[in-house]
Amino acid sequence: MPHTAPTFLIVADGKLAVETAKTATSAIRYLPERVVAVLDASKAGRTCQDVLGFGGAIPVVGTIEEGFARGPQALLVGIAPTGGALPPAWRGWVLAAIDRGLEVWSGLHTYLSDDPELATRAKARGVRLFDFRKPPEHLPVANGRARLVEAHVCLTVGTDCSSGKMTAQVELVAGLQAKGLRTRFVPTGQTGILLAGWGISVDAVVADFIAGAAEQLVLEGAKDADVVLLEGQGSLIHPGYSGVTLGLLHGACPASLVLCHQSSRRLIGQYHGASAWVPIPPLAQMVRLYEDAVAPIRPAKVIGIALNTYDLAESAARDAVRRAEDETGLPATDPVRFDKASLVNAIASAVARRHGPPA
Amino acid sequence: MPHTAPTFLIVADGKLAVETAKTATSAIRYLPERVVAVLDASKAGRTCQDVLGFGGAIPVVGTIEEGFARGPQALLVGIAPTGGALPPAWRGWVLAAIDRGLEVWSGLHTYLSDDPELATRAKARGVRLFDFRKPPEHLPVANGRARLVEAHVCLTVGTDCSSGKMTAQVELVAGLQAKGLRTRFVPTGQTGILLAGWGISVDAVVADFIAGAAEQLVLEGAKDADVVLLEGQGSLIHPGYSGVTLGLLHGACPASLVLCHQSSRRLIGQYHGASAWVPIPPLAQMVRLYEDAVAPIRPAKVIGIALNTYDLAESAARDAVRRAEDETGLPATDPVRFDKASLVNAIASAVARRHGPPA
Repeated sequence: MPHTAPTFLIVADGKLAVETAKTATSAIRYLPERVVAVLDASKAGRTCQDVLGFGGAIPVVGTIEEGFARGPQALLVGIAPTGGALPPAWRGWVLAAIDRGLEVWSGLHTYLSDDPELATRAKARGVRLFDFRKPPEHLPVANGRARLVEAHVCLTVGTDCSSGKMTAQVELVAGLQAKGLRTRFVPTGQTGILLAGWGISVDAVVADFIAGAAEQLVLEGAKDADVVLLEGQGSLIHPGYSGVTLGLLHGACPASLVLCHQSSRRLIGQYHGASAWVPIPPLAQMVRLYEDAVAPIRPAKVIGIALNTYDLAESAARDAVRRAEDETGLPATDPVRFDKASLVNAIASAVARRHGPPA
Repeated sequence: MPHTAPTFLIVADGKLAVETAKTATSAIRYLPERVVAVLDASKAGRTCQDVLGFGGAIPVVGTIEEGFARGPQALLVGIAPTGGALPPAWRGWVLAAIDRGLEVWSGLHTYLSDDPELATRAKARGVRLFDFRKPPEHLPVANGRARLVEAHVCLTVGTDCSSGKMTAQVELVAGLQAKGLRTRFVPTGQTGILLAGWGISVDAVVADFIAGAAEQLVLEGAKDADVVLLEGQGSLIHPGYSGVTLGLLHGACPASLVLCHQSSRRLIGQYHGASAWVPIPPLAQMVRLYEDAVAPIRPAKVIGIALNTYDLAESAARDAVRRAEDETGLPATDPVRFDKASLVNAIASAVARRHGPPA
């Protein structure tokens, strides 16, 4: 199983914007060095920086051939078509990529690998069609095997969805590696899979196998690693997604937790605008909820708070960090915006408590 | 959507036993008046009572024609074939049933309605192939709509799987109806669906839609009902299935909970024999766990304890009931074995507290 992604030509035709191309823009934001070009004829000739405000000099091209000329290893279908079916033009691009021997990565709900024409052509050409939302077959029912791994498993948990659970883990990898700890980010959602080149979208598996998917990810991620930074999902108090959150928590059997919170948010699901109604409790109460929920399976403590303060002015953001520390007695920071050391040190200390300091 | 099941001819060829034919034997145990015959050539000529120890005079027949002669409304595939594929003999029975205009009910993982030959024949004949493990398409993401229904929703929750969560609800229906409360059992698993004639196997839906399935079941079950007795699944501390449990709890937004426990069990999953390792905490602690888990979505109390004491002598069973009452301060009983009145009254009182007594 590869643990890095290839270089991509991204298909985002007519839709290159954060709102309409989440997969494409996540790849551009987190993996700019792996994106050779983006196909969007409506914005051809500009750069990603110019269109999106990030992504630097990555060129937006108007034809698939211009994209291929940049030498990508894979085609990434970075937007979802209206309606679900693959538009004829896209089919042509995918077939052209296969014919050139490029992998094709897709986060569509309609799996490319289930399409007879595409599957046949890919097989004949010996290239992989990777539907990264598609769960693997034959997942196990979890049974605590993840608690037995040698590696220290740290899971991010959240007050809500979209609160920075993937980002926090990605931001902490380098700091832990700098301390001599072999550290692996393990993704549980499609953007994370895109970054890491492997993983399982745990929200897409059949309900009986949520924890089994988490267990399998931990067992795989823990190989040759001292620290597994596992991406959390949802929230224990999210009215729609809490089952995914608890299944992931119990299947992963983490040794430590980092609680993620967007400081300006007051209600669960508020980012969707409509029909938010569950208040987010104080952080100290969320800490207790998570610790109580995991305790019967494998006791673990929340060891730090990762705040997402992107929509706050700097002084308000620093106030939010201080308040979180006062309220919980734990180290807190916004790991994207401020110094990450307090969270890196909290995880390293948790590892050392179990194993002694790294050699 | 029908809310009762048809009369069945059950296919259990060569496997009519509690261990090897869970669907078949559940139907015989809970729905004997709807089972006209069971097909098992290896036990032909005997009665279910004789073979299973329950089921009374229901005949076991040796050929499908003998079964049809008893006048069933539906064929129920009551066992799973080894390997998963439909054996040729079974295919012949299913086709014969379709040709006679009988519905065909199946709990197989391989859906009959996805089989081109069976689907085509059923369509031509105008009969329903009902794969009752198959989740409906287009489930919503839950968002608390279930908390707004007028009916009182009581959910059974458990210390473990297989602790009596379906049985308790089925046992309480008549007592509540006798008090003038329009009471509906709402199933969330395949045996329950068989009893009620409708429902969703919530453990078979995609993880993101567990709570959405529960919400949809409550909205449907609450129509023209004063009380919804919703079947729970799993346990909040089950290492493999807790995600299903929490999703169901948050999607259903119950007004009250009944905690179910098999008195002799000490470890989660002990009934499987192998690799059980999570101790079941004291009942009072389980009560707190469930009340804390549901509180942020819709506060609800555990109002009674349903024990499963099937493997205890009567005096030990009565001791277990007394201990459960002492430990939790709540009414307790084994609703299969002893007087159900304490649980019926607990639910009726909870309904009355909100709505006043029934007219």
